[in-house]
Formats: sequence, structure tokens, C-alpha cells
Amino acid sequence: MKLTRLQDKWKAGETGLNGWCSIPSTVSAEIMSLAGFDSITIDLQHGLVDYQTALGMLQAIGASGVTPIARVPWNEPGIIMKLLDAGALGIICPMVNTAQDAADFVGAMRYAPEGFRSSGPTRAAIVHGGNYHHEANDTLVSFAMVETKQAFSNLDEIAATDGLTGIYIGPSDLSVSMGYNPGLDRTEAEMDDMFGTILASCKAHGLKCGIHCGSADYAKSAFERGFDFATLASDVRLFSAGINAAISQMK
Amino acid sequence: MKLTRLQDKWKAGETGLNGWCSIPSTVSAEIMSLAGFDSITIDLQHGLVDYQTALGMLQAIGASGVTPIARVPWNEPGIIMKLLDAGALGIICPMVNTAQDAADFVGAMRYAPEGFRSSGPTRAAIVHGGNYHHEANDTLVSFAMVETKQAFSNLDEIAATDGLTGIYIGPSDLSVSMGYNPGLDRTEAEMDDMFGTILASCKAHGLKCGIHCGSADYAKSAFERGFDFATLASDVRLFSAGINAAISQMK
Amino acid sequence: MKLTRLQDKWKAGETGLNGWCSIPSTVSAEIMSLAGFDSITIDLQHGLVDYQTALGMLQAIGASGVTPIARVPWNEPGIIMKLLDAGALGIICPMVNTAQDAADFVGAMRYAPEGFRSSGPTRAAIVHGGNYHHEANDTLVSFAMVETKQAFSNLDEIAATDGLTGIYIGPSDLSVSMGYNPGLDRTEAEMDDMFGTILASCKAHGLKCGIHCGSADYAKSAFERGFDFATLASDVRLFSAGINAAISQMK
Amino acid sequence: MKLTRLQDKWKAGETGLNGWCSIPSTVSAEIMSLAGFDSITIDLQHGLVDYQTALGMLQAIGASGVTPIARVPWNEPGIIMKLLDAGALGIICPMVNTAQDAADFVGAMRYAPEGFRSSGPTRAAIVHGGNYHHEANDTLVSFAMVETKQAFSNLDEIAATDGLTGIYIGPSDLSVSMGYNPGLDRTEAEMDDMFGTILASCKAHGLKCGIHCGSADYAKSAFERGFDFATLASDVRLFSAGINAAISQMK
Amino acid sequence: MKLTRLQDKWKAGETGLNGWCSIPSTVSAEIMSLAGFDSITIDLQHGLVDYQTALGMLQAIGASGVTPIARVPWNEPGIIMKLLDAGALGIICPMVNTAQDAADFVGAMRYAPEGFRSSGPTRAAIVHGGNYHHEANDTLVSFAMVETKQAFSNLDEIAATDGLTGIYIGPSDLSVSMGYNPGLDRTEAEMDDMFGTILASCKAHGLKCGIHCGSADYAKSAFERGFDFATLASDVRLFSAGINAAISQMK
Amino acid sequence: MKLTRLQDKWKAGETGLNGWCSIPSTVSAEIMSLAGFDSITIDLQHGLVDYQTALGMLQAIGASGVTPIARVPWNEPGIIMKLLDAGALGIICPMVNTAQDAADFVGAMRYAPEGFRSSGPTRAAIVHGGNYHHEANDTLVSFAMVETKQAFSNLDEIAATDGLTGIYIGPSDLSVSMGYNPGLDRTEAEMDDMFGTILASCKAHGLKCGIHCGSADYAKSAFERGFDFATLASDVRLFSAGINAAISQMK
Repeated sequence: MKLTRLQDKWKAGETGLNGWCSIPSTVSAEIMSLAGFDSITIDLQHGLVDYQTALGMLQAIGASGVTPIARVPWNEPGIIMKLLDAGALGIICPMVNTAQDAADFVGAMRYAPEGFRSSGPTRAAIVHGGNYHHEANDTLVSFAMVETKQAFSNLDEIAATDGLTGIYIGPSDLSVSMGYNPGLDRTEAEMDDMFGTILASCKAHGLKCGIHCGSADYAKSAFERGFDFATLASDVRLFSAGINAAISQMK
Repeated sequence: MKLTRLQDKWKAGETGLNGWCSIPSTVSAEIMSLAGFDSITIDLQHGLVDYQTALGMLQAIGASGVTPIARVPWNEPGIIMKLLDAGALGIICPMVNTAQDAADFVGAMRYAPEGFRSSGPTRAAIVHGGNYHHEANDTLVSFAMVETKQAFSNLDEIAATDGLTGIYIGPSDLSVSMGYNPGLDRTEAEMDDMFGTILASCKAHGLKCGIHCGSADYAKSAFERGFDFATLASDVRLFSAGINAAISQMK
Repeated sequence: MKLTRLQDKWKAGETGLNGWCSIPSTVSAEIMSLAGFDSITIDLQHGLVDYQTALGMLQAIGASGVTPIARVPWNEPGIIMKLLDAGALGIICPMVNTAQDAADFVGAMRYAPEGFRSSGPTRAAIVHGGNYHHEANDTLVSFAMVETKQAFSNLDEIAATDGLTGIYIGPSDLSVSMGYNPGLDRTEAEMDDMFGTILASCKAHGLKCGIHCGSADYAKSAFERGFDFATLASDVRLFSAGINAAISQMK
Repeated sequence: MKLTRLQDKWKAGETGLNGWCSIPSTVSAEIMSLAGFDSITIDLQHGLVDYQTALGMLQAIGASGVTPIARVPWNEPGIIMKLLDAGALGIICPMVNTAQDAADFVGAMRYAPEGFRSSGPTRAAIVHGGNYHHEANDTLVSFAMVETKQAFSNLDEIAATDGLTGIYIGPSDLSVSMGYNPGLDRTEAEMDDMFGTILASCKAHGLKCGIHCGSADYAKSAFERGFDFATLASDVRLFSAGINAAISQMK
Repeated sequence: MKLTRLQDKWKAGETGLNGWCSIPSTVSAEIMSLAGFDSITIDLQHGLVDYQTALGMLQAIGASGVTPIARVPWNEPGIIMKLLDAGALGIICPMVNTAQDAADFVGAMRYAPEGFRSSGPTRAAIVHGGNYHHEANDTLVSFAMVETKQAFSNLDEIAATDGLTGIYIGPSDLSVSMGYNPGLDRTEAEMDDMFGTILASCKAHGLKCGIHCGSADYAKSAFERGFDFATLASDVRLFSAGINAAISQMK
Repeated sequence: MKLTRLQDKWKAGETGLNGWCSIPSTVSAEIMSLAGFDSITIDLQHGLVDYQTALGMLQAIGASGVTPIARVPWNEPGIIMKLLDAGALGIICPMVNTAQDAADFVGAMRYAPEGFRSSGPTRAAIVHGGNYHHEANDTLVSFAMVETKQAFSNLDEIAATDGLTGIYIGPSDLSVSMGYNPGLDRTEAEMDDMFGTILASCKAHGLKCGIHCGSADYAKSAFERGFDFATLASDVRLFSAGINAAISQMK
């Protein structure tokens, strides 16, 4: 398997900037993939995208060299395996609240004997090469989302999951879980401390740590703070920002 | 969030007439939405519809003012949350057989601390307004289907589920479960009694009670009997009725 | 090529009842195809259907035995040939106003030397059999629509077009062209006389004559009058009739 | 037919700001429709959209109150009529270079006796009301694009076309035709003079005049100069602007 | 319900040759269905197909007379029931590792009282006939995949599952589970012995036994050995074989 | 614009082997694009593909490095320009029978002043680079199909068309036009002579000459004879060959 951009960046000790696709369109995905991100995540959870559309999006971003990632709707083996077979090189799994959740997730990502992923990488083998089966377990990126109070209380056990690539912080859900309003780019000290604790736990366990951001400033500070991976807003947010800037200039 | 038609009707103490979409088409859905129903349910269980098609159907019925509802294939958080994020204002969940089933269902419908719905209402926030997060838990319609002998035996515990909007009777499955043939608009005394018991339990718990009907006469009598919500056949049934009437007139 | 139902009916000297699909859905098309019609016309002119959707609809009605027909958006060879290659066994062409229009239409339907249809019947050869090329010119149904005052004034020249199967009356456009309101099932003496004249011209030239009807009564009387082919409303009209009957029964 | 926002604005003597959809997605179209534009044009010429996708986009923007417009790929009656039947309330036609081109275009937009549009407004009648046939000729917006040297030389004859709503300037093609590089928001005196001549010709013939702009500043100055209609960039341009702003902020 | 080809073959004591569809296209599926297989399995697990696409494929193969089967992504009742309602006459369920897994699978296939399948066979009743409900439990084909060491160790308990039609061997996953490389058409003595044990267990329990093959030779020997059902490669494999044969002939 | 594989081959004085896509699927197209062809032609004429599907296919083959070409349904500027804007780097135009046909075709391919292509290369500019406008006229591949007796009689005038890249022989239609049965890989002396005459005319006018072949042997001999471009069967033919080889091996 040839390494894609996020993997190259990490190998070189650099950070990875992630773009986020919620619009169910191969065209917006292709535009995102050519914009300068290191990886593109197709969001099948809160994004307006399901499997068949995601497949087309994975094809449309194939020429760009970005690392193709998918967020699944829920921690279910069927959809995790389908997206890997479709060529995703990473999965972000929401709502990983316990060590068992994390083990289930990582198990679905890996072929036996490390896990229970079923063999049949239809498109993955075509586009990622013939040695896919033997390299997949070590190459695919698995991000467990820590985004609830419960997950935070189980942090170290989750981080200790064998085979997990990293933890991806969902700041909005985690804040809601802590009694705050939803939203990204949190500034509350309590939330900030929690993010720091998660980052430290990742470092201690040799994991990558990522975070979902709503602005370039926040993403930059995350990288400065030591995060390995940060999402810079979603296509919907970037599209709306472009529209609103133009519309408000008209007035 | 602006109230839609079913919510207005209920607020005014009136009943809600529901249309049912099984055909995977934005065109048939739009026609249904303009026909005079108070709500339209897109059926992802027995209907020939999956998520991506349902999204287009939700968009196509958006101009009509009807309350958009979806029936999910099964009691699974991933698809419940996806449909809410896509803008459905209500969910009908099949095969809620125990209090735990009901709690799982309602938990997936509600943000913390009431439930465990993940935050990210992509289209819902765009079309239903910016205060969506804070009003959703109290506004969204959750109907648990009681459609098995087991569910009936757990009726009061299901009805006692905190946050549940109502119970929706599936007469065909409930009849099959009781040893009868499948079919709507039951006339057996035993079935009729069960429906009465469910209706009474709903009233006792302050819940709405709905029922799936196959004819206008049955739906009218359901409203007279005190049901708050009745489905008047499906698009397939109404379409077939229109075709058959014309064809038989030819002979 | 195996004969389909309309062709069988005509061979037996009987009339053909046609169903009309305007809804872009393989599901509504399949339901129509199983309802008892002799042919199903997928309408790419006023119907909400384009080529790719029509292809799926042609596949979905393939098991029914009805004769698959398509109405093209306009008298253009590209789309006529694409629909034949996709397996349509007949084409209804709108707005055939002159003998030249008719010759252009029929030319696009037929392989050389009779016409200029390009060879490459991709799906047609797969589903209609290997001898397709040699039987197509004589087997495919070509209906030229006479639906303007101009077309009516050129009636006999149009009817004299070599290779044309028949004339299909568009009563609504023809009425509009004559200064009336749009609508099917005309009762004005002037329109009725024109229909009679067209029917007589067809009989004189050995052509089939068809007409677009909005009700079973009108279609029945058309058959009694000698028409060979009548469309019994569209899927939209039949669907709306089914819905309206049920809704009005509720009130 | 209920007036939509562009028509209301014009009736009130105000200008109309148009949004432009090139991405084949109901989701990006819906977002555009809720952003504050008066009309949304779905571009089937240079946009990556064909009829079936455009239909879904027309449905998705139906709730917003904007005036739905489509640009056709070429001056061909089939696609013009299909888009009107699908509910578009206006058509922008590219490459109208002669009075004959303009007459062909306007003829395809209008029912007899004014034109030769075929009757069968399947979705238009459903969503725009039952009196559609009688109001359509006077209500639908027809914009002929003047975008070549030839068209400019025929300007007054084009502007004199009976039933034409207005002229829409394609600055990029017109500039290419004059020997300049492609691009919007022209500042060459020659181009500026030509735009002024077209605007004056429109005013003299009682037509609306519109122009395709790439920035808010240019669109604002167009309105100040007397243009009735201006497009503020396309979805692709606004999306790219939003992405680029964020990406460059990262560096 | 009319019997389809696989059912006819089995009834006559013959073997069934199965084709496998991984390409999400109604066209490739239709071609496969006309090629001479007894059944066609649409693979929603490793195939690049989801529900909505599978529905169109089921419609496209309806005219061929082959038995339509689907493999589900995972042992989940929602998707099993949806595919049956869509007209699949058989389900292959992956990763059935325990007797409980098998009971869950078969329960989802069967109406009460034998199982817990929900009633509402929307398309199935339309295309397979009105007595569908009463014949489905006895007619539908249920294949549990035995493809892990764990499943093999529970073989007889799985085979004893009431209502199960048969066991389908997944040679690749089973080999991976045993420490071999993935791949079909195994020649290792250990694997061959395991296949023999499974076949014998099926015979002992009155079950059908099927196996996934990659070549005609292997499938032929499977039939000679007593297997009732064998898959002859997938569409992707057959397509690639056709391409590679031609390309290598060029060199 | 970066050169793609066919362009590189031609620049190096080599021949180009073309693959042909008739199946409307991004998956089969992607498989074809990775198989070793120099270019891939998506066939919108006899292929079962329309514009929206072709767009996805163009995206799916973008990573392969092959030159993306499209065959249009007919010589119409709207669809030619749409496919170029979608990123096709070449167009094969059927039924170019006269010098005027050829001039119309080439005019639609080229920006002013050489032609009348409208400017707005939405996807083409994104994926092929910012200097697209200035390089397109000289870079895009235009193949006029000579496939009728009439075209053959106008051969030299067609070949003299300024800006034309080459002539593509349609052996089946040309044979039909000469009174033979349809089919590729002609062996009749008369047909062979005509092919030779066309090839010689191309060489004399400095044009590329291509031919549609049905087998590797025929394509090889075409290259040996001096053809610059040969299509090696279609996806449907290669797929069917793969299926038939396996099926017949079973018997």
C-alpha cells in the first residue's frame, strides 16, 4: 500500500489537517480534496451522506493524494467494514464510551487474528494494491471519539486499546455532556482542561490525538499544543462562510 | 423551531391525519405532502426507501407545511439520529417490545442529559432554526410501535417511558403475533379490545395514541374513538386503488 | 424478437390499453406494469423523467410482458436512438407537424437503408434477442403525435410517411392550438370532428391510431370508435385520484 | 400563480440578486436558497447538473420562496420545456445570437398562440397552482444571453423580441468573443461600454437587464448602474472562497 | 409463490449455480441474470452495493427467472427484513458464529410464530403473489455463513437451527481464521477437511450446503463432492478476467 | 494542462489503446481505467449512460492517468460542451457525414475565435489546471466518426476540417450503410479497402486515425497497419466474455 498524505505527514513527524464532507456530492468532495488538506473525512454520522454516496465520494477524491477517512454513524461492524472495503483508509468512530466499545471498534477494523474484520476488500484491493490484506491491520487509521463524560471517565482504558491509532475529540458533544451548550472551539477552562487531559493520555499511550475545530485559529492553536490531527470546519460551514461573506458585502 | 401542521393540530386539541410514503421518490412524496395530510411519514422499514432517498424526500416535502416523520428500519441509534439530523421532526420506531427498548429509542431521540443523541443537526438546524438544540428534546415526536404480544404484555411499562410522545399501533404485526392473518383495519373483538387497552394506557400516561389504518372509514372511527393520530393508507395502496378503479372501469 | 403484449393484441386484431409513467421511479413503473395495461409509456417529455431514470424503469417493467414505449422530449435523433438501444420497443414523438418532421422521426427509428439509426443496440440486443438488427425496422412501434393546427393541415402527408406505425393524438395541445383550454377528453364538436378525421386518415393509410385519454369512459368510447390504442390517464393522475378519494372520504 | 421573491422585487421596482448553482446536489442548492438571494439559477449549461438532478434541486429550494430559474445547455425546445414543466419559473438561454434565436427561445417558453410550448406542466401545475396554463405566458421569466460579438451586433433586434423578459449578459464569453481573456467583472473600457449599450437597449425596449458577476462589489455597482438583476458568483466560487480563506489562515 | 430457478433445481434434486454481484449497477446485474446462473446473489457485505441500489438490481433481474438472493452486511434484523420486503427470496448471512447467531438470523427471516419478521412485504407481495405471507417462512432460503474457527467449533449447533435452509462456506475468512492467507479455492488438506466436515454436518441435519468458489473447476468439483450450491466467482472477478484476457492478448 | 496517457503516447509516436464504457457505473469505469488502457471512452451514444452518470465516471477514472474521452449521442453543441466542462479531454462525435457536420463539431469543441464553445469549464479548470482556457483548443482530442456511405464520399472534405484531431471509423454502421450485416472486425475486401482509404486520407491530412475493434487480434493488426488509436471491445463485451468463459467451463 502506497502511503497517502496524512500518513506521510505523520511519518515525517508533522501534523495532519483534515477536511470534512457533510454534503452528499462527489463534486463538493472533489473540490475539498484539491484544496490543501492532508485527509478528507466523509461524515456518515451527522453528514447527509450514506454508503452509496460515500463510495462515489471516495472515488472522486482518489486522484488527490489525500488520505480518505470516513466517520461511521455508529459503532457497528457492518458499516465500518463496508467503508474499509470501499477504500477508506481510516475510520472515525463516534461515541466510544468504554474499553469494550473501543475493543469492538478496533476489532471490526482488523483481520484475524488481531480482529474480526471479514475478508473481501473489493475496491480497497483494486486501488490500494494487492498486498492490502497483510498491510491493512498496521496501516488503517482508527480514531475513537471521546465525546461524553462517561468516555472521559474511561479515558485511560480506552487509550490502552491494542491497535487503536488515536483518539478524536468531539468537543460539542463532550461539552453538552458536561452541561454546556453545543459548539466547537471551546474556551471554558473546564473543557480546555479535559482536552489537555485527553491529549496527555494519548501521548502516554503512544496514540495520535485529534480534535474537531470550527476555525483556523483554533486548529492552529491545537497543533501548537501538540495535537496530531485537526479538522478545519466542514464543507457546510466553509460553504456558508463563503456565501455569507459575499451576501453581507452586498448590504 | 416553527411548529408544523401536526404539532399545530395537537396543540389545538385536534387529531392528526398521517400520509405514508413507501415509494422511493421525491415526486410521489411531494404529491402526498400537498394532498391534505397533517404529517407525512417516510417509511424506511417496510417502505422501499433508504436514508439517501429519504433525505431528498424530506427536502421535497419541506414546502408543504406537513410534519415530516420517518419510520426507522429497526431500533438502532445510528439511523434514528441520521434521520433527525436530516430534518425529520418525528420518528416511529418498530418493534418496541420492552421498557428497555423504549428507553433505548427515546434516549437516541434526545440530547444529554435526557438522552444520548449526538449533537450535529446538520440539515435540521438549517431548516428548523438556530435554537434547534434547545427545543428538540421537547419538540420531536417519538412514537414507539406496540405490535407484538410481548409489547402488549409490557404496555404500561413502555407507556411510562420518560420523554416518549406516544404509542403507534401496528395492527398487522400485532394480529400476526396473536395468531391472526396479517392485515389492517381489524374487526376481531380480541384485537379491538387490545387497541382499546392501548389507547386507554396512553390516555392514562398522557401519551398520544396512533394507529395504522387501511381505509378512511377505519381512520375516521379511530378518531371518533379517541385516537390522536391515524395513518390513512400508504402511497402504494392509494396508487393501486387509483389504478384499479380506472382499470376495472375499462372492463 | 419475442412479441410483447401490445404487439400480440394488435396481431389478434384487438386494441391496446396504454399506461403512462410520469413519476421518475422504478417502483411506480413496476406497479403500473403489473396492473393490466398492454403497454407502458415512459414519458420523457412532460413526465419528470430523463434517460438514466428511464433506463431503470425499462428494466423494472421488463418482467411484466407489457410493451415498453417511451415518449421523447422532442424530435431529436440522439434521444430516440438512446431509448431504443435501452430496450424501448416503441417511441411516441411529440410535435410532428410536417411530413419532413415525420420523415426525420421515422428515419431515426430505422437502420439503413430504410433510415439512419446508428447500430449499437446495447441493452435491446441483450433483452430482445440476437436477431434484433434485422427485425427492429419492422417491429418497433413509431407513433407521430399530431397535436397542432399545422400538423392537422398536413395530416395526410404525415400519414403517408413510409415506415410510420401510427398517429397518436395529443388532445390537449391540439385543443390549445385551436383556441380552447388545455385538457383531455374533449367534448367540443370541432375537436371531436378533428379526431374523427385523424382516425379516418390513419385507417386510409393503414396506420394505427392512438389517443391520450384522461378517463376510462373516454378510453372505452375511443376503442368503440375504432381507435387501436388509448392511454388511460397517467400515474400522477391515477395516484392523485386514489389519494383524493381517500382524503375526501375522511371529511 | 403566487409570485415568488424576484417577481415581488421587480414589481416593487427593486433589483433582484441571483444565486447560481453548479454543484449537482439538493443540499448545496437548499443552502443557497436560504441564504438571502431573490432567485436561484440552476445551471445546466456550465454547471455539473442535468435534468434529473435539477428536478431534485427545484424541489429542495421550493420552501425558500426564491424564484427558481434554470439555465439550459443550449437553445433547444426539449430541455426548455422540461425544466418549465419541472417547476422552473424562469429560463436563461445561452448563445442567443440572432433575432431568430431569440424568437425560437421565446416560442419554446410560451403556449399557443404566442408560442409553441407543449402543454403538460406536470410538476409546475402541482406546485404553482391550477391556473398555471393561463398565467404562464405572462409570468415566466425569459432571459436571452447576449455573449458574442454577433449577438451584440444584433442587439436591438434581439431586444425587440415579443415576449422576452430581458437580456442577461455573459461577460466572460462576450469578452472572449472580443479577443480578451475569459473572466467576470470586466474593467476594460470597451467591455464596459458594451455592457452600457446593452443596458440602454434593454431600457429602450422595456426589458430587464441582468449580468453575471463574480464579486459583491461588481454586483453592487451593476445595481447602481441600473441593472435589474445580477448574479453574485456561483456556489463553486463561494465554496472555494470559503475554503481558501480558512486554508490560507492556517498558514 | 411461483418457484424460481434455484428452487426448481433443488426440487429436482439438482445443484444450483450462483452468480455474485458486487458492482452497484442494474445493468451488470441484468447481464449476470441472463447468463445461465440459477440464482444471483447481490452482495451488500463486501460488494459495493447498499439497499437502494440493491432494490433496483432486484427489479432488473426480475425478468430472468433466477432466484434473487442478497448477502447482508451483518447479522442485523433491519437490513435482512428490508431485503426480503424488496423481493429477495434468500439471504446469506455472514459471520454466523454461534447457535444464538443462527437463531437470531433465522428469526429475522420468519414471521411469527416461527420468528419475529415484521409484516409488510411491500414489493415481495407485488411480485411474488398474494399468498406471500403464508408461504414465505417455508419458501425463503436462509444461508448461514460458517467462516470462522469459532463457527466451525459450533457447527452442529448451528446446523441444528430450526428453519435454517443451509450453510454457506466462506473459504477465505475461514482460512484467515485458521492462519492461512485469504483466498478462494483452497487446496490445503486442513481446509479441505473442514469443508468436508461442514458438508457432512449439513447432510446429517438435512441442510443444503453451499460454497463460494473462484473458478469453474473448483465449483464443478464442489458439485461432484455433494455440494448443493456453489458460487462461480463474482462480477468483478469475471469482468477483470475478461479485460485481462483481452489486454494480455494485445501484448 | 498536464498531458494524460494517450497524449503522451502520441507525442512519443506510439499508438493508443482505448477502453470503452457502456455500463453506467463508476465502479466498472474505475476498473477499466486501471486495466492498462491509454484512454477510456465513456459512451453516451450507444452506451447506457447519460451526462450525470458520465460525470461520476469521469471523476472515478481521474486517478488512473488515462485520457478521459466521451462519445456524445449526437452532433449537438450542448452535450459536447457539457462533457468538456465536466473534464473530458476528448470527444468522439458520431455520424459526421459532411464537411459542415465536421465544422459544427469542431466549432463546438473550440473557444473563439477558432470556434464557438462557451466559456465556463467548471470541473475541467479544477482538475486540469488554471491555464485551461488557453490550452484547450490545441489540446482537446476531437474524433469525427466516419460511418456512412455519405461520410465516405465526403471523406477528404471532412479530413480537411481545421482543428480536427482525427477520424474514428465506426465499422459496424459503415458496413450496414454498405449493405452488410452489422458487426466489428470486418473482413470483407470492400470494407477493408474503405478502411485503408480512410487511413490514407488521415495520413495525408495530418490527422490521427482510429477504429472500433472487437478483438485483440484485430486491434493489433490495426496498429500494425498504421492506425494511431484502436478501441479494444467494450466493457459489456469484456464482461460477457469473462462470464461466458466461466459458464461454459462449468458444462
